[in-house]
Amino acid sequence: MAAASAAFEAVANLDPRWPASLLDRIAEEIMALGDALLDRAAAETALPRGRLISERGRTVGQLKMFAQIVREGAWLDATIDTGDAHRQPLPKPDVRRMAIARGPVAVFGASNFPFAFSAVGGDTASALAAGNPVIVKGHPSHPGTSELFATAVLAAIKARNLPPGLYALLQGRSNDLGAALVRHPAAAAVGFTGSRKAGRALFDLAAGRPNPIPVYAEMGSLNPLIILPGAIQERGAAMAKDLAGSILLGGGQFCTKPGVILMVGNPTEFLVALEQHISSTQSVTMLNQPLRDGFLSRVTQWKRIDGVRASGAPAAIGYAGTRPILFETTAAVFLSEGELREEAFGPAALVVRCDDETEIARVLGTLGGNLTATVHAAAGDNPVALIGAMQSIAGRIVFNGYPTGVEVCNAMVHGGPYPATTDANSTSVGSAAIRRFARQVAFQNTPDEFLPPALQNGNPLKIIRNVNGRMTAEPVER
Amino acid sequence: MAAASAAFEAVANLDPRWPASLLDRIAEEIMALGDALLDRAAAETALPRGRLISERGRTVGQLKMFAQIVREGAWLDATIDTGDAHRQPLPKPDVRRMAIARGPVAVFGASNFPFAFSAVGGDTASALAAGNPVIVKGHPSHPGTSELFATAVLAAIKARNLPPGLYALLQGRSNDLGAALVRHPAAAAVGFTGSRKAGRALFDLAAGRPNPIPVYAEMGSLNPLIILPGAIQERGAAMAKDLAGSILLGGGQFCTKPGVILMVGNPTEFLVALEQHISSTQSVTMLNQPLRDGFLSRVTQWKRIDGVRASGAPAAIGYAGTRPILFETTAAVFLSEGELREEAFGPAALVVRCDDETEIARVLGTLGGNLTATVHAAAGDNPVALIGAMQSIAGRIVFNGYPTGVEVCNAMVHGGPYPATTDANSTSVGSAAIRRFARQVAFQNTPDEFLPPALQNGNPLKIIRNVNGRMTAEPVER
Repeated sequence: MAAASAAFEAVANLDPRWPASLLDRIAEEIMALGDALLDRAAAETALPRGRLISERGRTVGQLKMFAQIVREGAWLDATIDTGDAHRQPLPKPDVRRMAIARGPVAVFGASNFPFAFSAVGGDTASALAAGNPVIVKGHPSHPGTSELFATAVLAAIKARNLPPGLYALLQGRSNDLGAALVRHPAAAAVGFTGSRKAGRALFDLAAGRPNPIPVYAEMGSLNPLIILPGAIQERGAAMAKDLAGSILLGGGQFCTKPGVILMVGNPTEFLVALEQHISSTQSVTMLNQPLRDGFLSRVTQWKRIDGVRASGAPAAIGYAGTRPILFETTAAVFLSEGELREEAFGPAALVVRCDDETEIARVLGTLGGNLTATVHAAAGDNPVALIGAMQSIAGRIVFNGYPTGVEVCNAMVHGGPYPATTDANSTSVGSAAIRRFARQVAFQNTPDEFLPPALQNGNPLKIIRNVNGRMTAEPVER
Repeated sequence: MAAASAAFEAVANLDPRWPASLLDRIAEEIMALGDALLDRAAAETALPRGRLISERGRTVGQLKMFAQIVREGAWLDATIDTGDAHRQPLPKPDVRRMAIARGPVAVFGASNFPFAFSAVGGDTASALAAGNPVIVKGHPSHPGTSELFATAVLAAIKARNLPPGLYALLQGRSNDLGAALVRHPAAAAVGFTGSRKAGRALFDLAAGRPNPIPVYAEMGSLNPLIILPGAIQERGAAMAKDLAGSILLGGGQFCTKPGVILMVGNPTEFLVALEQHISSTQSVTMLNQPLRDGFLSRVTQWKRIDGVRASGAPAAIGYAGTRPILFETTAAVFLSEGELREEAFGPAALVVRCDDETEIARVLGTLGGNLTATVHAAAGDNPVALIGAMQSIAGRIVFNGYPTGVEVCNAMVHGGPYPATTDANSTSVGSAAIRRFARQVAFQNTPDEFLPPALQNGNPLKIIRNVNGRMTAEPVER
């Protein structure tokens, strides 16, 4: 943390676009790791090579995207209100605002995205892009993978002649390590992806500091998926297959896995097909044994509840394997059994049969905050009221699709009301993620030579700015 | 809170610009209160009529500004990434993001701005503008003034045919009332202006909820003001007068009052002049007796410290009056006496004499977060390093001016690192204040007829949007 603080001071006087060339170089260094990275990650996570290759693509892609965001500079939200010395009764000052870096950011890597949300994942990329040093607490599930990523970053920092304190990877299983990072006086913000228990613990630590700091924690989600009768009639067979694929993607270990399926009535044919697709996968190797054991304990609880039907018995298979299970119950049982509203992280989903759309909306209202909510509708269905209910609990509404697969783009919201995240006004995926790791500063009546380049009259960075209410890349006339 | 929740549901289906006409009407209703409002406020606050008239102008002005912000719609940050069905290996989804209202907002009125930051002040205006119901806990210093404002809002709500639950004013001296608002399950966010103790208590309550909610607390500031030697030489006499005016503005009860004056050496002539200007005001009537007593207790502490010189003795004058005092000490004493870094809310300031600019920077580094930091410089001064130190502790840098007087504009940051506020990435003054009371939601592959108007292809609201990375008010081509 001391090295990070020193690095933060050292970069203050550099060209403000310094993160761009660093991020691009990190992307190159990651690709240069080649098979060593893929082999190590496959050994540590049991994720298939194809998935790892595509996740590497996303990881490198988001580094390059943030480099581009830094070069464009629009994220700084540079806003200039020029003064008016003749305004009555008082002169109007010249005021200029922009986003600046916060300081050292502690990032907690996730187990389920060893590339895209771990040592050099989305939080690291967006925090560096905003100009902050990053200290990563690596996830103990894949220490070798994290270490390889760290070597890539440190090589890139060296190649760009930047201070080495800009990045550090700390490894270990102890909660004390993470707590020490969050409590450290130099820590300015925290990024986290993981369980609700761990995320909330870090949030509580940060809120309890003498000077509280923000914690952007993404803590999983039930991701309700609604299937209306018209959709079943139109494309039930295809949906049963695609939905099973979404549930089992990455071994059911996506934070966007559709975990609660809400349906009207009892569409037997669809449910049989869905169950067959789920059961056709005999076994899934999970990311680590504690996750598998946690999954087993949750689904064993579910199976014991009266009125809940399971497609099979929970099973421990080998070191970290288990069997996919589809559960099914009624809205009445779901509403009365709180355990069914806790996420089963792994290859399982729960179908909740409701009397009608009104009961679906009532169930939605009990789910709390979610990353996503999905509706499948077709001719004859009226999803309008449900979209309102979905919007009130989720950060992303998906229409006739599946929530797994989070597009990295400007418009993405990978966030949502608590407990999906600790800040519903932010996203951890997409270009807007950079905003989390900044704070606002204004300069009043400050001579041009003392202003940051982004706010100078001549607009030397050639960025889009709000000048007296108008978006423009033109210089300011004085 | 129940009425607010019901109102929040009721407005969901209105034209999304409904807050604009409400805010304009509230401004009209406030003006229609006429002398009754000014008389009541003068009686309750002891603030002079001229000040109240100008504060009313600001209050009405910011209501109208937020109405305009709502009509323009750029604050929604509507962002559209259109899809591509042919992208390989996976189709690119259509994703659209915007800001939406959070839900009922609890606002805590301040004592020192009975109009601009109280029952219908900046927090109320910005929270309503974002589409949220507002429940105000009125400040017990001016209950009649708050009540008049509330009648104006309720009349405007009625005139616009909106649900009455959109606004409520609750009055009382009990902390339990405020705590109950922050703890209430329906509360979605909190706006607060006041003391650090009260702000932190509300922050802790909100962070400790089962589902934490954001607290935007503005909790005062020392507002360091640096005067470099060249500036004294160039315009010392004028500065002594203007600085005294800024310190005593509103009886020294501005959160932006320059409370700590940092100078190089011992510019005797300037200090004598500053002290004369301060002492020429015999007595100030403060907003209420507890504030006056708190002020006396703080300055009495200061006066007892060895090495601190005071221009006079702390004095209680009448019901809530006191005498302005200028204090003076050295950097060595200031750095060793923690009490001197606590705000004296009232008509006092502390001059800290430093050896050189390096010592000034060291003192700045011990001040913690501030709303503002000011530097006066002229030929021969080199403020560059100090501006860096100021930026690291403050939300607004003022050059050759005074921090009191906060311009309501797009570029304003009335915020800063803790303990100035609880969220350094936000502002409570200026148009950007609206962003605090929103959250983000994205829609994926959603048919046009189910999208909010701000995200529909045709752009029926005619707002500026980010479409595939480009800012435009044009419709989206499909």
